[in-house]
Amino acid sequence: MMKLKGNLLYGQSGGPTSVINASAYGVIQEAFKNSDVIEKVYVMNHGIQGALREELFLINDQYKKDIELLKHTPGSAFGSVRYKLKDASDDETDYIKLLELFKKYNIRYFLYNGGNDSMDTCSKIARYMEEAHYQVSVIGIPKTIDNDLPYTDHTPGFGSAAKYVANTMAEIHYDMLAYPIGKVTIVEIMGRHAGWLTASSALASINGFGPDLIYLPERPFTFEKFKRDVKEVYEKQKNCLIAVSEGIVNELGHFVFSKSGKDDFGHSQLGGVAAKLADLLSKELKIPTRSVELSSSQRAAAHYQSLIDVQEAIGVGSYGVQLAINQESNLMVGIKRLSNDPYQVEYTGFDLLSCANYEKKMPDSMINMEGNGITKEFIDYALPLIQGEHKPKYHLGVQQFAKIK
Amino acid sequence: MMKLKGNLLYGQSGGPTSVINASAYGVIQEAFKNSDVIEKVYVMNHGIQGALREELFLINDQYKKDIELLKHTPGSAFGSVRYKLKDASDDETDYIKLLELFKKYNIRYFLYNGGNDSMDTCSKIARYMEEAHYQVSVIGIPKTIDNDLPYTDHTPGFGSAAKYVANTMAEIHYDMLAYPIGKVTIVEIMGRHAGWLTASSALASINGFGPDLIYLPERPFTFEKFKRDVKEVYEKQKNCLIAVSEGIVNELGHFVFSKSGKDDFGHSQLGGVAAKLADLLSKELKIPTRSVELSSSQRAAAHYQSLIDVQEAIGVGSYGVQLAINQESNLMVGIKRLSNDPYQVEYTGFDLLSCANYEKKMPDSMINMEGNGITKEFIDYALPLIQGEHKPKYHLGVQQFAKIK
Repeated sequence: MMKLKGNLLYGQSGGPTSVINASAYGVIQEAFKNSDVIEKVYVMNHGIQGALREELFLINDQYKKDIELLKHTPGSAFGSVRYKLKDASDDETDYIKLLELFKKYNIRYFLYNGGNDSMDTCSKIARYMEEAHYQVSVIGIPKTIDNDLPYTDHTPGFGSAAKYVANTMAEIHYDMLAYPIGKVTIVEIMGRHAGWLTASSALASINGFGPDLIYLPERPFTFEKFKRDVKEVYEKQKNCLIAVSEGIVNELGHFVFSKSGKDDFGHSQLGGVAAKLADLLSKELKIPTRSVELSSSQRAAAHYQSLIDVQEAIGVGSYGVQLAINQESNLMVGIKRLSNDPYQVEYTGFDLLSCANYEKKMPDSMINMEGNGITKEFIDYALPLIQGEHKPKYHLGVQQFAKIK
Repeated sequence: MMKLKGNLLYGQSGGPTSVINASAYGVIQEAFKNSDVIEKVYVMNHGIQGALREELFLINDQYKKDIELLKHTPGSAFGSVRYKLKDASDDETDYIKLLELFKKYNIRYFLYNGGNDSMDTCSKIARYMEEAHYQVSVIGIPKTIDNDLPYTDHTPGFGSAAKYVANTMAEIHYDMLAYPIGKVTIVEIMGRHAGWLTASSALASINGFGPDLIYLPERPFTFEKFKRDVKEVYEKQKNCLIAVSEGIVNELGHFVFSKSGKDDFGHSQLGGVAAKLADLLSKELKIPTRSVELSSSQRAAAHYQSLIDVQEAIGVGSYGVQLAINQESNLMVGIKRLSNDPYQVEYTGFDLLSCANYEKKMPDSMINMEGNGITKEFIDYALPLIQGEHKPKYHLGVQQFAKIK
């Protein structure tokens, strides 16, 4: 393809992470650096929905302070969306609108930041534009706290969420030890189909205060086995700290507990697993229990960003722009681990379609035989990702976040 | 009283705060400095229960590294307890045991770190020892995230909890803005009878991202009024962030929602208020809702200590030892605010009995007319208490905590 001068369009999609805006920062800075090729940087208001409604923001130097703050800002600074594009062969409406928009704004670089579903969106747009002979580089920028995107060694967003989970778990463990007879404390951790984030609770143990038991969606969960495990620990210690994934499934592969509703992608709404297990356990074992749901802080705790994660989130954004201006397209940026000691990575591109709609689970070698904990291989894998602290930007004791809209 | 050479006994009681161990640090360091008067420093294992069982630790230089870590350690480093001493006139058993212990270990300085109930314990012991003509200085060191101890301007533990709540609330607000149509998000905050901690969620607003509505135990809560308030905000913004105290009460003064159990002091076990309100609201208003329970992180988030709070927690510990070696007794250490700009305090002693079993509520002047928010007077009061950050001691990306036992 010929190198075309043109404009860049960036958007965010799916559930936020505490570093998705650091990727936005990476995209914007790299685009500014390449102003010989990229003339203007536009951002979609609420992802693809904003593009379909022609709600774009022009990002320029006027936002300098806020662009800096993107590195410290949780949520989606430009708004996110859960909107699934239909196949173009079934309904072309959205694609026609996008093509018109791309032409009108001379969009030659399209970078979309999201998880599995967003890579599907990206892949569909790339294919459509190619068939329509409209030259645009379409690049997916990965993000997810769940760490379930394939091919990439890990995903930006996971390291910070893991750091938050590990440290909060250490705090809860120490808190649990306060009384002579502790409670069985069940902590519910996000992760719809993959246990990466729940497993990262084990990182707390490197300084002596971590979970006794860990239950992951990768292993069938039975209440009887769970009860035996807890009883054994509790009889020895008079307390027990448990990390449980919101997505644990029974032997038939069904969620053990799920709320009735479904989200806009048709996924089951999870939550409340820890509370239900705590309730059942206290009734059956007659021991004191409590439940803690780590909830939205797992994706929003900007104050707990891992420095490595922030650097990599910026890195995948920058690299995405580099791929795009080199006329690469239809790729998701991924991370390749070169070595663990010292920890070194490089960025690369993976075929978008292969990355879409596929969820990477934890390998057997990272889960213990009993199915109630992890192995050293997981620690070796995850520990480098939570290193370093990215100090928040405080004003009067409260964090400052970007205000760009 | 004559100045007596002797030993010091320190203990922790009641629910932890993220800085109660900083007070332990203050006590220990000040005692070490005054080794001409205080020969040995003992600590009770699980507070008064450890004393009754003669479970004491001798603290000496061997623990140097861990003593330093106390400033960064949540929970109760020496174990806490909820144990209510009977009146000596009803049952002298415990007091006789304590007197024997004091004599055996030559305890002349008794410092007990806790909230309202612990001040009651302190006061009873002081009175008994005086009647038994055993010379011992009994000093209460205040702690509580609830900020409900009387006389003292505020209580160590509150500032850090408030900083955690305010910052987490800002993060949740930003996270809620991600989608075009947000959810009504109800965040449940601790505080059994007083709204100080729930009110501190409003501090988030100084940088633009705080709660829209705040419900405190100081004002009767009616679901009808709540529903109207939420509807008004939601219709305008398409989202609504609410801070609600776990201890909200109806017009008869009964908890709006309470779990069936009672704790060891006979208090009702609270929790689940936000979840229940979210459920009711979504049924009645047909709008999307979610609930978040900030849970144990409010008292255990050592990583979110306010620097001012840590300094004051150390300060009340040190000052308690100073009072004791000056042969003062039957006092709780308190904080007097001298000025707000610059923020300046001094420490003082308050009569123990007056501090026991009394819970200080928020004054009317800090709550808005509608009963769904706070006034500037509260912000002026609370903002200085969350200033500064106390950097955790990380090892491999995870916080280190003291291991003294």
